[in-house]
Amino acid sequence: MLSKAQIKFIKSLQVKKYRQQEQCFVVEGAKSVLELLNSDFTTNLVVATPEFLQTHSPVIKKFQGEILSVKSGALSALGEFKSNNTALAIARIRLNEPFLISKNEFVLVLDDIRDPGNLGTIIRLADWYGIDKVIASTETADVYNAKVLHASMGSFTRVRLFYTNISQYLSKQSMPAFGAFLNGENVHRMDWGAGGLIVIGNEAHGISDMVARQITRRVTIPKFGKAESLNAALATAVLCDNLRRGR
Amino acid sequence: MLSKAQIKFIKSLQVKKYRQQEQCFVVEGAKSVLELLNSDFTTNLVVATPEFLQTHSPVIKKFQGEILSVKSGALSALGEFKSNNTALAIARIRLNEPFLISKNEFVLVLDDIRDPGNLGTIIRLADWYGIDKVIASTETADVYNAKVLHASMGSFTRVRLFYTNISQYLSKQSMPAFGAFLNGENVHRMDWGAGGLIVIGNEAHGISDMVARQITRRVTIPKFGKAESLNAALATAVLCDNLRRGR
Repeated sequence: MLSKAQIKFIKSLQVKKYRQQEQCFVVEGAKSVLELLNSDFTTNLVVATPEFLQTHSPVIKKFQGEILSVKSGALSALGEFKSNNTALAIARIRLNEPFLISKNEFVLVLDDIRDPGNLGTIIRLADWYGIDKVIASTETADVYNAKVLHASMGSFTRVRLFYTNISQYLSKQSMPAFGAFLNGENVHRMDWGAGGLIVIGNEAHGISDMVARQITRRVTIPKFGKAESLNAALATAVLCDNLRRGR
Repeated sequence: MLSKAQIKFIKSLQVKKYRQQEQCFVVEGAKSVLELLNSDFTTNLVVATPEFLQTHSPVIKKFQGEILSVKSGALSALGEFKSNNTALAIARIRLNEPFLISKNEFVLVLDDIRDPGNLGTIIRLADWYGIDKVIASTETADVYNAKVLHASMGSFTRVRLFYTNISQYLSKQSMPAFGAFLNGENVHRMDWGAGGLIVIGNEAHGISDMVARQITRRVTIPKFGKAESLNAALATAVLCDNLRRGR
Protein backbone atom coordinates (compact mmCIF):
# COMPACT_ATOMS: atom_id res chain seq x y z
CA MET A 1 0.00 0.00 0.00
CA LEU A 2 1.09 3.50 -0.79
CA SER A 3 0.90 5.95 2.11
CA LYS A 4 -0.59 9.41 1.62
CA ALA A 5 2.88 10.86 2.18
CA GLN A 6 4.34 8.66 -0.57
CA ILE A 7 1.60 9.70 -3.01
CA LYS A 8 2.22 13.35 -2.17
CA PHE A 9 5.99 12.90 -2.59
CA ILE A 10 5.66 11.17 -5.97
CA LYS A 11 3.25 13.79 -7.27
CA SER A 12 5.51 16.62 -6.07
CA LEU A 13 8.26 15.30 -8.38
CA GLN A 14 6.20 16.36 -11.41
CA VAL A 15 7.52 19.86 -10.63
CA LYS A 16 11.15 20.69 -11.46
CA LYS A 17 11.70 22.69 -8.26
CA TYR A 18 10.83 19.66 -6.10
CA ARG A 19 12.86 17.29 -8.28
CA GLN A 20 15.91 19.50 -7.69
CA GLN A 21 15.18 19.83 -3.99
CA GLU A 22 14.81 16.06 -3.54
CA GLN A 23 17.36 15.13 -6.25
CA CYS A 24 14.84 12.51 -7.39
CA PHE A 25 12.67 11.93 -10.46
CA VAL A 26 9.81 9.68 -11.54
CA VAL A 27 10.00 7.15 -14.39
CA GLU A 28 6.67 5.92 -15.78
CA GLY A 29 5.80 2.94 -17.94
CA ALA A 30 6.94 -0.68 -18.08
CA LYS A 31 9.59 -0.23 -20.77
CA SER A 32 11.17 2.84 -19.16
CA VAL A 33 11.16 1.29 -15.67
CA LEU A 34 12.88 -1.86 -17.00
CA GLU A 35 15.50 0.24 -18.82
CA LEU A 36 16.02 2.21 -15.61
CA LEU A 37 16.56 -0.94 -13.53
CA ASN A 38 19.12 -2.16 -16.07
CA SER A 39 20.98 1.16 -16.08
CA ASP A 40 23.53 2.80 -13.81
CA PHE A 41 20.90 5.10 -12.25
CA THR A 42 20.24 4.61 -8.53
CA THR A 43 16.61 3.55 -8.14
CA ASN A 44 14.98 3.93 -4.73
CA LEU A 45 11.43 2.74 -5.24
CA VAL A 46 9.41 0.66 -7.68
CA VAL A 47 5.61 0.85 -7.64
CA ALA A 48 4.07 -1.74 -9.94
CA THR A 49 1.20 -4.15 -10.47
CA PRO A 50 1.58 -7.74 -9.20
CA GLU A 51 1.59 -8.86 -12.87
CA PHE A 52 4.55 -6.61 -13.70
CA LEU A 53 6.49 -7.75 -10.63
CA GLN A 54 5.90 -11.40 -11.49
CA THR A 55 6.63 -11.12 -15.23
CA HIS A 56 9.90 -9.33 -14.55
CA SER A 57 10.90 -11.17 -11.36
CA PRO A 58 14.56 -11.74 -12.47
CA VAL A 59 15.09 -7.96 -12.73
CA ILE A 60 13.02 -7.26 -9.61
CA LYS A 61 14.95 -9.81 -7.52
CA LYS A 62 18.22 -8.01 -8.26
CA PHE A 63 16.71 -4.68 -7.21
CA GLN A 64 17.78 -3.54 -3.72
CA GLY A 65 15.28 -0.73 -3.07
CA GLU A 66 11.70 -0.62 -1.87
CA ILE A 67 8.98 -2.39 -3.91
CA LEU A 68 5.28 -1.64 -3.63
CA SER A 69 2.64 -3.76 -5.31
CA VAL A 70 -0.49 -1.80 -6.24
CA LYS A 71 -3.54 -2.11 -8.46
CA SER A 72 -3.33 -0.64 -11.94
CA GLY A 73 -5.96 1.99 -11.12
CA ALA A 74 -3.79 3.38 -8.33
CA LEU A 75 -0.86 3.63 -10.74
CA SER A 76 -2.84 5.57 -13.33
CA ALA A 77 -3.78 8.10 -10.67
CA LEU A 78 -0.20 8.43 -9.45
CA GLY A 79 1.78 9.45 -12.51
CA GLU A 80 1.59 12.17 -15.13
CA PHE A 81 0.50 9.67 -17.80
CA LYS A 82 -2.96 8.27 -17.12
CA SER A 83 -2.18 5.61 -19.74
CA ASN A 84 0.52 4.15 -17.50
CA ASN A 85 -1.08 1.42 -15.40
CA THR A 86 1.85 -0.96 -15.07
CA ALA A 87 4.93 0.42 -13.34
CA LEU A 88 6.56 3.55 -11.97
CA ALA A 89 9.88 4.14 -10.26
CA ILE A 90 11.74 6.82 -8.33
CA ALA A 91 15.43 7.28 -9.10
CA ARG A 92 18.24 9.67 -8.17
CA ILE A 93 19.06 12.55 -10.48
CA ARG A 94 22.60 12.40 -11.91
CA LEU A 95 25.02 15.17 -11.02
CA ASN A 96 25.20 17.86 -13.70
CA GLU A 97 28.86 17.34 -14.60
CA PRO A 98 30.85 18.09 -17.76
CA PHE A 99 32.05 15.06 -19.76
CA LEU A 100 35.36 14.25 -21.30
CA ILE A 101 34.83 14.34 -25.05
CA SER A 102 37.10 12.40 -27.37
CA LYS A 103 38.24 13.93 -30.68
CA ASN A 104 36.73 10.93 -32.42
CA GLU A 105 33.16 11.31 -31.30
CA PHE A 106 30.14 13.39 -32.19
CA VAL A 107 28.18 15.19 -29.47
CA LEU A 108 24.92 17.13 -29.76
CA VAL A 109 24.68 20.68 -28.41
CA LEU A 110 21.13 21.96 -27.85
CA ASP A 111 20.52 25.70 -28.07
CA ASP A 112 17.22 26.02 -26.17
CA ILE A 113 15.15 22.98 -27.17
CA ARG A 114 12.17 23.97 -25.05
CA ASP A 115 9.53 21.43 -25.99
CA PRO A 116 9.82 18.33 -23.75
CA GLY A 117 8.59 16.04 -26.54
CA ASN A 118 11.27 17.38 -28.90
CA LEU A 119 13.99 16.91 -26.29
CA GLY A 120 12.93 13.32 -25.59
CA THR A 121 12.77 12.57 -29.31
CA ILE A 122 16.26 14.01 -29.83
CA ILE A 123 17.64 11.88 -26.95
CA ARG A 124 16.10 8.77 -28.55
CA LEU A 125 17.55 9.80 -31.92
CA ALA A 126 21.02 10.35 -30.42
CA ASP A 127 20.81 6.86 -28.90
CA TRP A 128 19.86 5.38 -32.31
CA TYR A 129 22.88 7.01 -33.95
CA GLY A 130 25.29 6.04 -31.17
CA ILE A 131 25.69 9.53 -29.71
CA ASP A 132 25.69 9.27 -25.91
CA LYS A 133 26.53 12.83 -24.87
CA VAL A 134 24.39 15.94 -25.16
CA ILE A 135 25.34 19.46 -24.04
CA ALA A 136 22.16 21.46 -23.35
CA SER A 137 21.67 25.19 -22.79
CA THR A 138 20.20 26.09 -19.42
CA GLU A 139 16.95 27.08 -21.21
CA THR A 140 16.54 23.59 -22.67
CA ALA A 141 13.71 21.47 -21.20
CA ASP A 142 14.58 19.44 -18.09
CA VAL A 143 15.58 15.88 -18.97
CA TYR A 144 13.79 14.63 -15.83
CA ASN A 145 10.43 16.05 -16.97
CA ALA A 146 7.96 13.16 -17.43
CA LYS A 147 7.22 14.10 -21.06
CA VAL A 148 10.94 14.12 -21.94
CA LEU A 149 11.49 10.72 -20.33
CA HIS A 150 8.39 9.32 -22.06
CA ALA A 151 9.41 10.56 -25.53
CA SER A 152 12.96 9.25 -25.04
CA MET A 153 11.55 5.69 -24.85
CA GLY A 154 14.17 4.60 -22.33
CA SER A 155 17.11 6.24 -24.14
CA PHE A 156 17.55 8.68 -21.24
CA THR A 157 19.35 5.83 -19.46
CA ARG A 158 22.09 5.70 -22.12
CA VAL A 159 22.45 9.34 -23.20
CA ARG A 160 23.96 11.77 -20.68
CA LEU A 161 23.09 15.46 -20.60
CA PHE A 162 25.15 18.32 -19.26
CA TYR A 163 23.39 21.68 -18.80
CA THR A 164 25.58 24.75 -19.16
CA ASN A 165 26.04 28.11 -20.87
CA ILE A 166 26.64 26.68 -24.34
CA SER A 167 28.19 29.73 -26.02
CA GLN A 168 30.84 29.86 -23.26
CA TYR A 169 31.22 26.10 -23.48
CA LEU A 170 31.72 26.18 -27.26
CA SER A 171 34.23 29.04 -27.00
CA LYS A 172 36.53 26.75 -24.98
CA GLN A 173 36.36 23.78 -27.38
CA SER A 174 38.85 23.09 -30.14
CA MET A 175 36.69 20.56 -31.99
CA PRO A 176 34.72 21.60 -35.06
CA ALA A 177 31.27 22.99 -34.21
CA PHE A 178 28.68 22.22 -36.89
CA GLY A 179 25.42 24.13 -37.18
CA ALA A 180 22.64 24.12 -39.79
CA PHE A 181 22.16 27.38 -41.70
CA LEU A 182 20.74 28.17 -45.12
CA ASN A 183 24.11 29.09 -46.64
CA GLY A 184 26.50 26.34 -45.59
CA GLU A 185 28.19 23.24 -46.97
CA ASN A 186 25.85 20.68 -48.53
CA VAL A 187 25.46 17.85 -45.97
CA HIS A 188 25.16 15.37 -48.83
CA ARG A 189 28.68 16.08 -50.06
CA MET A 190 30.77 17.15 -47.10
CA ASP A 191 33.41 15.35 -45.09
CA TRP A 192 32.41 15.46 -41.41
CA GLY A 193 35.77 14.29 -40.12
CA ALA A 194 36.16 12.03 -37.09
CA GLY A 195 34.18 14.01 -34.55
CA GLY A 196 32.65 17.30 -33.53
CA LEU A 197 29.87 19.20 -31.85
CA ILE A 198 26.55 19.32 -33.69
CA VAL A 199 24.62 22.42 -32.60
CA ILE A 200 20.82 22.25 -32.85
CA GLY A 201 18.86 25.50 -32.78
CA ASN A 202 15.70 26.42 -30.92
CA GLU A 203 12.38 25.27 -32.49
CA ALA A 204 11.22 28.80 -33.33
CA HIS A 205 14.37 30.92 -33.52
CA GLY A 206 17.08 28.54 -34.73
CA ILE A 207 20.64 29.00 -33.49
CA SER A 208 21.02 32.20 -31.44
CA ASP A 209 23.50 34.90 -32.50
CA MET A 210 25.76 34.32 -29.49
CA VAL A 211 26.03 30.64 -30.29
CA ALA A 212 26.27 31.19 -34.07
CA ARG A 213 29.57 33.01 -33.53
CA GLN A 214 31.04 29.77 -32.18
CA ILE A 215 30.00 27.70 -35.21
CA THR A 216 33.08 26.80 -37.25
CA ARG A 217 31.30 24.81 -39.98
CA ARG A 218 27.97 25.95 -41.37
CA VAL A 219 26.09 23.10 -42.98
CA THR A 220 22.94 23.03 -45.11
CA ILE A 221 20.36 20.33 -45.65
CA PRO A 222 19.42 20.58 -49.34
CA LYS A 223 15.83 21.62 -49.99
CA PHE A 224 13.83 20.23 -52.91
CA GLY A 225 10.48 21.95 -52.27
CA LYS A 226 9.08 25.11 -50.74
CA ALA A 227 8.91 24.84 -46.93
CA GLU A 228 10.90 27.62 -45.27
CA SER A 229 12.56 25.38 -42.72
CA LEU A 230 12.62 21.94 -41.16
CA ASN A 231 11.50 21.10 -37.61
CA ALA A 232 14.53 21.06 -35.25
CA ALA A 233 14.26 17.36 -34.33
CA LEU A 234 13.84 16.33 -37.97
CA ALA A 235 16.84 18.41 -39.05
CA THR A 236 18.86 16.70 -36.30
CA ALA A 237 17.80 13.30 -37.65
CA VAL A 238 18.98 14.23 -41.14
CA LEU A 239 22.31 15.57 -39.83
CA CYS A 240 22.93 12.43 -37.73
CA ASP A 241 22.10 10.12 -40.63
CA ASN A 242 24.44 12.04 -42.90
CA LEU A 243 27.37 12.07 -40.53
CA ARG A 244 27.08 8.33 -39.82
CA ARG A 245 26.68 7.09 -43.40
CA GLY A 246 29.71 5.46 -44.92
CA ARG A 247 31.24 4.75 -41.52
CA MET B 1 -16.78 43.89 -34.95
CA LEU B 2 -17.35 40.17 -34.63
CA SER B 3 -20.94 39.16 -33.97
CA LYS B 4 -21.77 36.56 -31.32
CA ALA B 5 -22.89 34.25 -34.12
CA GLN B 6 -19.53 34.63 -35.90
CA ILE B 7 -17.59 33.88 -32.70
CA LYS B 8 -19.75 30.79 -32.12
CA PHE B 9 -19.28 29.67 -35.73
CA ILE B 10 -15.47 30.08 -35.63
CA LYS B 11 -15.20 28.25 -32.32
CA SER B 12 -17.41 25.42 -33.57
CA LEU B 13 -14.83 24.73 -36.32
CA GLN B 14 -12.37 23.49 -33.68
CA VAL B 15 -14.43 20.28 -33.79
CA LYS B 16 -14.04 17.95 -36.80
CA LYS B 17 -17.77 17.17 -36.95
CA TYR B 18 -18.63 20.84 -37.46
CA ARG B 19 -15.78 21.37 -39.93
CA GLN B 20 -17.20 18.56 -42.05
CA GLN B 21 -20.76 19.85 -41.69
CA GLU B 22 -19.77 23.39 -42.71
CA GLN B 23 -16.97 22.29 -45.08
CA CYS B 24 -14.87 25.07 -43.54
CA PHE B 25 -11.76 25.28 -41.36
CA VAL B 26 -9.85 27.91 -39.36
CA VAL B 27 -6.28 29.01 -40.09
CA GLU B 28 -4.45 30.80 -37.26
CA GLY B 29 -1.33 32.95 -37.25
CA ALA B 30 0.12 35.59 -39.56
CA LYS B 31 2.38 33.29 -41.57
CA SER B 32 -0.29 30.64 -42.15
CA VAL B 33 -2.96 33.19 -43.07
CA LEU B 34 -0.61 34.80 -45.63
CA GLU B 35 0.25 31.41 -47.13
CA LEU B 36 -3.46 30.64 -47.27
CA LEU B 37 -4.26 33.89 -49.12
CA ASN B 38 -1.50 33.13 -51.64
CA SER B 39 -2.76 29.55 -52.21
CA ASP B 40 -5.55 28.01 -54.27
CA PHE B 41 -7.77 27.53 -51.21
CA THR B 42 -11.04 29.51 -51.19
CA THR B 43 -10.92 31.87 -48.22
CA ASN B 44 -14.19 33.34 -46.96
CA LEU B 45 -13.20 35.49 -44.02
CA VAL B 46 -10.11 37.16 -42.58
CA VAL B 47 -10.14 38.40 -38.98
CA ALA B 48 -7.00 40.41 -38.18
CA THR B 49 -5.55 43.34 -36.30
CA PRO B 50 -5.41 46.75 -38.04
CA GLU B 51 -1.58 46.42 -38.02
CA PHE B 52 -1.71 43.10 -39.91
CA LEU B 53 -4.19 44.46 -42.45
CA GLN B 54 -2.03 47.50 -43.08
CA THR B 55 1.32 45.70 -43.24
CA HIS B 56 -0.04 43.19 -45.74
CA SER B 57 -2.34 45.53 -47.67
CA PRO B 58 -1.21 44.29 -51.15
CA VAL B 59 -2.37 40.75 -50.29
CA ILE B 60 -5.47 42.00 -48.47
CA LYS B 61 -6.54 44.23 -51.39
CA LYS B 62 -6.60 41.23 -53.73
CA PHE B 63 -8.76 39.27 -51.29
CA GLN B 64 -12.45 39.12 -52.29
CA GLY B 65 -14.02 37.84 -49.06
CA GLU B 66 -15.10 39.46 -45.82
CA ILE B 67 -12.49 41.27 -43.68
CA LEU B 68 -12.92 42.06 -39.99
CA SER B 69 -10.52 44.29 -38.10
CA VAL B 70 -10.31 43.41 -34.39
CA LYS B 71 -8.05 44.02 -31.41
CA SER B 72 -5.36 41.46 -30.68
CA GLY B 73 -7.05 40.43 -27.41
CA ALA B 74 -10.20 39.44 -29.28
CA LEU B 75 -8.11 37.29 -31.63
CA SER B 76 -6.37 35.43 -28.81
CA ALA B 77 -9.76 34.53 -27.37
CA LEU B 78 -11.10 33.36 -30.73
CA GLY B 79 -8.67 30.69 -31.87
CA GLU B 80 -7.24 27.50 -30.44
CA PHE B 81 -3.81 29.12 -29.97
CA LYS B 82 -3.88 31.82 -27.32
CA SER B 83 -0.48 32.93 -28.68
CA ASN B 84 -2.07 33.99 -31.96
CA ASN B 85 -2.97 37.65 -31.65
CA THR B 86 -2.47 38.75 -35.27
CA ALA B 87 -4.65 37.04 -37.86
CA LEU B 88 -7.12 34.23 -38.41
CA ALA B 89 -9.00 33.10 -41.52
CA ILE B 90 -11.83 30.78 -42.51
CA ALA B 91 -11.37 28.77 -45.71
CA ARG B 92 -13.19 26.01 -47.61
CA ILE B 93 -12.12 22.41 -47.09
CA ARG B 94 -10.83 20.74 -50.27
CA LEU B 95 -12.73 17.77 -51.64
CA ASN B 96 -11.22 14.44 -50.56
CA GLU B 97 -10.31 13.23 -54.04
CA PRO B 98 -7.70 10.73 -55.28
CA PHE B 99 -4.74 12.21 -57.22
CA LEU B 100 -3.09 11.14 -60.40
CA ILE B 101 0.37 9.94 -59.46
CA SER B 102 3.19 9.97 -61.98
CA LYS B 103 5.67 7.06 -62.14
CA ASN B 104 8.43 9.61 -61.57
CA GLU B 105 7.33 10.98 -58.24
CA PHE B 106 7.47 9.97 -54.61
CA VAL B 107 4.33 10.11 -52.48
CA LEU B 108 3.95 9.53 -48.73
CA VAL B 109 1.41 7.03 -47.42
CA LEU B 110 0.51 7.42 -43.73
CA ASP B 111 -0.65 4.35 -41.82
CA ASP B 112 -2.46 5.97 -38.87
CA ILE B 113 -0.36 8.99 -37.88
CA ARG B 114 -2.62 9.97 -35.00
CA ASP B 115 -0.75 12.80 -33.34
CA PRO B 116 -1.69 16.15 -34.93
CA GLY B 117 1.77 17.61 -34.29
CA ASN B 118 3.41 14.64 -36.03
CA LEU B 119 1.08 14.95 -39.03
CA GLY B 120 1.79 18.68 -39.39
CA THR B 121 5.53 18.09 -39.07
CA ILE B 122 5.39 15.39 -41.75
CA ILE B 123 3.48 17.73 -44.11
CA ARG B 124 6.15 20.41 -43.60
CA LEU B 125 8.86 17.80 -44.20
CA ALA B 126 7.18 16.58 -47.41
CA ASP B 127 7.07 20.20 -48.60
CA TRP B 128 10.80 20.62 -47.84
CA TYR B 129 11.63 17.54 -49.89
CA GLY B 130 9.36 18.45 -52.81
CA ILE B 131 6.70 15.82 -52.10
CA ASP B 132 3.27 17.37 -52.64
CA LYS B 133 0.95 14.38 -52.28
CA VAL B 134 0.14 12.36 -49.18
CA ILE B 135 -2.22 9.39 -48.96
CA ALA B 136 -3.52 9.06 -45.39
CA SER B 137 -5.40 6.24 -43.70
CA THR B 138 -8.82 7.18 -42.38
CA GLU B 139 -7.45 6.90 -38.82
CA THR B 140 -4.79 9.54 -39.48
CA ALA B 141 -5.32 12.91 -37.75
CA ASP B 142 -7.49 15.43 -39.63
CA VAL B 143 -5.37 17.83 -41.71
CA TYR B 144 -7.79 20.67 -40.84
CA ASN B 145 -7.17 20.27 -37.09
CA ALA B 146 -5.62 23.52 -35.75
CA LYS B 147 -2.57 21.69 -34.31
CA VAL B 148 -1.85 20.01 -37.66
CA LEU B 149 -2.10 23.30 -39.55
CA HIS B 150 0.09 25.03 -36.97
CA ALA B 151 2.84 22.38 -37.09
CA SER B 152 2.77 22.37 -40.90
CA MET B 153 3.94 26.03 -40.84
CA GLY B 154 1.94 26.89 -43.97
CA SER B 155 2.96 23.77 -45.92
CA PHE B 156 -0.67 22.52 -45.79
CA THR B 157 -1.31 24.94 -48.68
CA ARG B 158 1.15 23.10 -50.97
CA VAL B 159 0.80 19.46 -49.90
CA ARG B 160 -2.47 17.70 -50.74
CA LEU B 161 -3.87 14.86 -48.66
CA PHE B 162 -6.25 12.11 -49.73
CA TYR B 163 -7.85 10.03 -46.96
CA THR B 164 -8.69 6.45 -47.88
CA ASN B 165 -8.36 2.79 -46.94
CA ILE B 166 -4.63 2.58 -47.61
CA SER B 167 -4.24 -1.21 -47.78
CA GLN B 168 -6.92 -1.32 -50.51
CA TYR B 169 -5.31 1.69 -52.17
CA LEU B 170 -1.86 0.11 -52.17
CA SER B 171 -3.21 -3.18 -53.54
CA LYS B 172 -4.30 -1.34 -56.71
CA GLN B 173 -0.98 0.45 -57.31
CA SER B 174 1.78 -0.86 -59.56
CA MET B 175 4.50 1.47 -58.23
CA PRO B 176 7.02 0.22 -55.67
CA ALA B 177 5.79 0.59 -52.08
CA PHE B 178 8.64 1.27 -49.63
CA GLY B 179 8.28 0.72 -45.89
CA ALA B 180 10.79 0.83 -43.02
CA PHE B 181 11.37 -2.48 -41.23
CA LEU B 182 14.29 -3.85 -39.24
CA ASN B 183 15.27 -6.42 -41.89
CA GLY B 184 15.25 -4.53 -45.18
CA GLU B 185 17.65 -2.96 -47.68
CA ASN B 186 20.09 -0.44 -46.24
CA VAL B 187 18.76 3.03 -47.14
CA HIS B 188 22.35 4.28 -47.39
CA ARG B 189 23.13 1.96 -50.29
CA MET B 190 19.92 1.29 -52.19
CA ASP B 191 18.65 2.59 -55.51
CA TRP B 192 15.23 4.14 -54.94
CA GLY B 193 14.35 4.35 -58.64
CA ALA B 194 12.38 7.23 -60.14
CA GLY B 195 9.33 7.15 -57.89
CA GLY B 196 7.22 5.23 -55.43
CA LEU B 197 5.02 5.18 -52.37
CA ILE B 198 6.77 5.67 -49.02
CA VAL B 199 4.68 4.08 -46.28
CA ILE B 200 5.05 5.54 -42.76
CA GLY B 201 3.84 3.48 -39.82
CA ASN B 202 1.85 4.51 -36.76
CA GLU B 203 3.79 6.17 -33.91
CA ALA B 204 3.32 3.26 -31.49
CA HIS B 205 2.63 0.22 -33.65
CA GLY B 206 4.56 0.85 -36.87
CA ILE B 207 3.17 -0.42 -40.17
CA SER B 208 0.08 -2.60 -39.64
CA ASP B 209 -0.02 -6.21 -40.87
CA MET B 210 -2.66 -5.48 -43.52
CA VAL B 211 -0.54 -2.70 -44.97
CA ALA B 212 2.76 -4.58 -44.56
CA ARG B 213 1.48 -7.19 -47.05
CA GLN B 214 1.41 -4.47 -49.71
CA ILE B 215 5.02 -3.35 -49.14
CA THR B 216 7.17 -4.43 -52.09
CA ARG B 217 10.47 -3.01 -50.82
CA ARG B 218 11.45 -3.27 -47.16
CA VAL B 219 14.04 -0.68 -46.22
CA THR B 220 16.12 -0.21 -43.07
CA ILE B 221 17.69 2.88 -41.55
CA PRO B 222 21.05 1.72 -40.18
CA LYS B 223 21.36 1.92 -36.41
CA PHE B 224 24.65 2.83 -34.71
CA GLY B 225 23.48 2.83 -31.07
CA LYS B 226 20.95 1.15 -28.81
CA ALA B 227 17.51 2.77 -29.20
CA GLU B 228 14.89 0.21 -30.25
CA SER B 229 13.30 2.42 -32.86
CA LEU B 230 13.12 5.91 -34.31
CA ASN B 231 10.15 8.28 -33.97
CA ALA B 232 7.89 8.04 -37.07
CA ALA B 233 8.40 11.63 -38.22
CA LEU B 234 12.19 11.41 -37.77
CA ALA B 235 12.34 8.14 -39.71
CA THR B 236 10.37 9.83 -42.49
CA ALA B 237 12.90 12.68 -42.54
CA VAL B 238 15.77 10.22 -42.91
CA LEU B 239 13.96 8.31 -45.70
CA CYS B 240 13.16 11.51 -47.62
CA ASP B 241 16.72 12.79 -47.32
CA ASN B 242 18.08 9.48 -48.56
CA LEU B 243 15.79 9.22 -51.55
CA ARG B 244 16.51 12.79 -52.68
CA ARG B 245 20.30 12.76 -52.31
CA GLY B 246 22.23 12.51 -55.55
CA ARG B 247 19.28 13.75 -57.61
